[in-house]
Amino acid sequence: MEMLTPNLNSEANIPVYQQLYHYIKNEIKDGRIPCNSKLPSKRKLSAHLNISQNTIQAAYDQLIEEGYIQSFEKKGFYVNKLDHLQSITLPSVTAATPVMNKKAEVIYDFSNHGVDFDAFPFVQWRKLSKEVINEYDKELLLLGDSLGYHQLRCALASYLHQSRGVNCSENQIVISSGTEMLFQSLIQLFDSSYVYGIENPGYEKLNQLFRGNRASFIPIRIDDRGMIPEEVEQCQPNVLCITPAHQFPSGQIMPINRRIRLLNWANHQPDRYIIEDDYDSEFKYSGKPIPALQGIDENEKVIYMGSLSKSISPTLRVSYMVLPPHLMYTFRKELSYQLCPVPIFEQKVLCRFMEEGYFERHLNKMRNIYKRKRELLVTSLQDMNPEIKIIGADAGLHLLIQLPNHMSEDQLILSALAKGVRVHQYSKYYPNQIALPDKPTILLGFAMITEKEIEAACKLLKDAWFST
Amino acid sequence: MEMLTPNLNSEANIPVYQQLYHYIKNEIKDGRIPCNSKLPSKRKLSAHLNISQNTIQAAYDQLIEEGYIQSFEKKGFYVNKLDHLQSITLPSVTAATPVMNKKAEVIYDFSNHGVDFDAFPFVQWRKLSKEVINEYDKELLLLGDSLGYHQLRCALASYLHQSRGVNCSENQIVISSGTEMLFQSLIQLFDSSYVYGIENPGYEKLNQLFRGNRASFIPIRIDDRGMIPEEVEQCQPNVLCITPAHQFPSGQIMPINRRIRLLNWANHQPDRYIIEDDYDSEFKYSGKPIPALQGIDENEKVIYMGSLSKSISPTLRVSYMVLPPHLMYTFRKELSYQLCPVPIFEQKVLCRFMEEGYFERHLNKMRNIYKRKRELLVTSLQDMNPEIKIIGADAGLHLLIQLPNHMSEDQLILSALAKGVRVHQYSKYYPNQIALPDKPTILLGFAMITEKEIEAACKLLKDAWFST
Repeated sequence: MEMLTPNLNSEANIPVYQQLYHYIKNEIKDGRIPCNSKLPSKRKLSAHLNISQNTIQAAYDQLIEEGYIQSFEKKGFYVNKLDHLQSITLPSVTAATPVMNKKAEVIYDFSNHGVDFDAFPFVQWRKLSKEVINEYDKELLLLGDSLGYHQLRCALASYLHQSRGVNCSENQIVISSGTEMLFQSLIQLFDSSYVYGIENPGYEKLNQLFRGNRASFIPIRIDDRGMIPEEVEQCQPNVLCITPAHQFPSGQIMPINRRIRLLNWANHQPDRYIIEDDYDSEFKYSGKPIPALQGIDENEKVIYMGSLSKSISPTLRVSYMVLPPHLMYTFRKELSYQLCPVPIFEQKVLCRFMEEGYFERHLNKMRNIYKRKRELLVTSLQDMNPEIKIIGADAGLHLLIQLPNHMSEDQLILSALAKGVRVHQYSKYYPNQIALPDKPTILLGFAMITEKEIEAACKLLKDAWFST
Repeated sequence: MEMLTPNLNSEANIPVYQQLYHYIKNEIKDGRIPCNSKLPSKRKLSAHLNISQNTIQAAYDQLIEEGYIQSFEKKGFYVNKLDHLQSITLPSVTAATPVMNKKAEVIYDFSNHGVDFDAFPFVQWRKLSKEVINEYDKELLLLGDSLGYHQLRCALASYLHQSRGVNCSENQIVISSGTEMLFQSLIQLFDSSYVYGIENPGYEKLNQLFRGNRASFIPIRIDDRGMIPEEVEQCQPNVLCITPAHQFPSGQIMPINRRIRLLNWANHQPDRYIIEDDYDSEFKYSGKPIPALQGIDENEKVIYMGSLSKSISPTLRVSYMVLPPHLMYTFRKELSYQLCPVPIFEQKVLCRFMEEGYFERHLNKMRNIYKRKRELLVTSLQDMNPEIKIIGADAGLHLLIQLPNHMSEDQLILSALAKGVRVHQYSKYYPNQIALPDKPTILLGFAMITEKEIEAACKLLKDAWFST
């Protein structure tokens, strides 16, 4: 090839060498400069284009580095052979985003996926954040312990012991982002042949999670005291996943007898474990909090899980688990490549939030707020119709109702929605839709809705459900 | 049972009803109150203990709720039968933490696991954090999009397009915590029969990760242009995991020809994909940055991955991937239960950091700092001995060296350590120790070490490696 004549503009924003580089690259890609052809020498091109040899060198260097051309000593610059990009036809996939249901106009939502908006401790959180982001703190830039920030694990161990009766040292605690991640780690930790027994009805994500991780699971029925031991014996799982403090979604508390029976089931075989998900145990409005199952486990059978999603905010994405020592040993050995996913900034803010007493005060405040909301909701429901059956212990952030009318679950939901109130499906918590409840049941969360809204919404629900 | 006589103290910190509840619970647990026995009536016990019937009711309620006793209408309160907790002998496990190697006294460390300490933008980060934690911002408490904060995905899409030539919309981006998590999602997304081809040598965690997730993988050799296409053909993986911008750890840039060949390999079959891990591409010190492989993919074959671990800090734990539209469709359908693990606070701070131009300025600053460090390290090594071979492109945060002496890798590391300098193993990046390098090779990271320390450390290394 004799010469190149690009259209270079020395006053453009892009440096001239890059303009040249782009020009040659495109000429090569489009086949206008054939492979194996020799590029003009720097000296010649410099004279031709009236730009410095350095500029040309920079463009050529870039082309060499990207493999478009090659330099041969004392011979010059040659264009490499490029394989052509083959085009294949893509399998015809409708690549559009899955269609969302058309949104009905929702005025009030009894959602159970959040916390009270007005009570978040913004002032304290802002203050602590500002204090934590300290340029003299090298810890903020150091990849710390893969289990989570040590001081936060200490604060958690002490909180869990005092408030939940959990017996553990900070060295048994793993901090993660959401209970889903903890389950994922456990699936990796346990033998791949293990079968997980999950509550039916239960937390709706568990079956997706086990399926996604290609782990076997069996939905096991619950009665009014939690998972049924006879069914556990029959289904022969290795690991039970239960919510004894406040069964989700039925809202029952597992009595001590049932707890002991399930623990004894686990004690019978070395490959049996219980995962205790203590997701909202902070909120119990009458009586004393019921200590965690972990506290009465003497044989390293219980993995305790909790999160700050209900007690502070789900957007923190902070969860934790307490592993029995022998499992922690395996965890450290096998899963040390998993780094703690929570940013160290946030772990430090949270740690101070706990250490300086803000967490305890926040919990006390929230307990009162939610207790009041629950009472108001119960009263409003009873006022609406005294025969509405309210299901679930005086605890947590949701309750269930069954209505003395003949509407189906869908009818209840749709008629409420027609009035602008979103109430929630209970049947969706039955994995594979096994053993559905005899009576249509509705779930009402009361954390995110305000007291005023509860009253207004219940008036609308009365219209929806009881105005013939 | 006739009567109970606990030792109650009305002036203690614990309320009397709780003292009574604890007393009865322990009596039941220890077998001193046998099962099926009737507890004293509230009236009788109230008279006996001289406390109100309400107090006794509260204690009994708690016991009922926990399942220790039961109330039968018009009959009274009866103790339930409790299964005894069986004790089994635990398998003898040495539950101690795995023993760490005794730490030699390290004065200087050429670590490649961090960033420059002194250059983190504390002031800006603190300011943005303070601004973001705004009590009127409901978004901070709402579980947002499971793919990550929408505005941050927009900022990333625009950054990736401008600086890396990645073509994508924000709807193709998934934000996560660390590339490990992204790989974990992909393993779930792809068919479980898929075989992953990983670079040999390569990122040390990949084989642990695939093993932990029970996915099949094959280490595939690289030459000085990256993964060898002939070996790819021979090994028949489904998904290639490569680092074309700056191969880790060898430091090479994959030329365009090789890129096209690997893309063509992927184009040949519908079940072939390439995961492009662009882990430190922000740092290239001469020539123009080389655009991402994703930018020349026309057939939805490339999954692009990146993180802010090298460009801002690994402690942020923010990573992201760009999925081709048809894979994003499946991702949304199958993995929607996975919530974005990054706290919304942090996503918002980061978003502003990018939108307000801080990120670009930070990158420019860091590029200069690291470029200077690399130049100083190269000069110091050449001064040490002009025959030291320096391997790796003028890019990234680490380089490799081979020495003109006859020490083994271990000898090089240990003799350096004896002088107080930690240099790093290269052979550990060979999964299963396949096809080890012909010559002992050492990895030197230069992000965390200061310029002064580089000079001092190189003097010590000269003593360690070239005295006598």
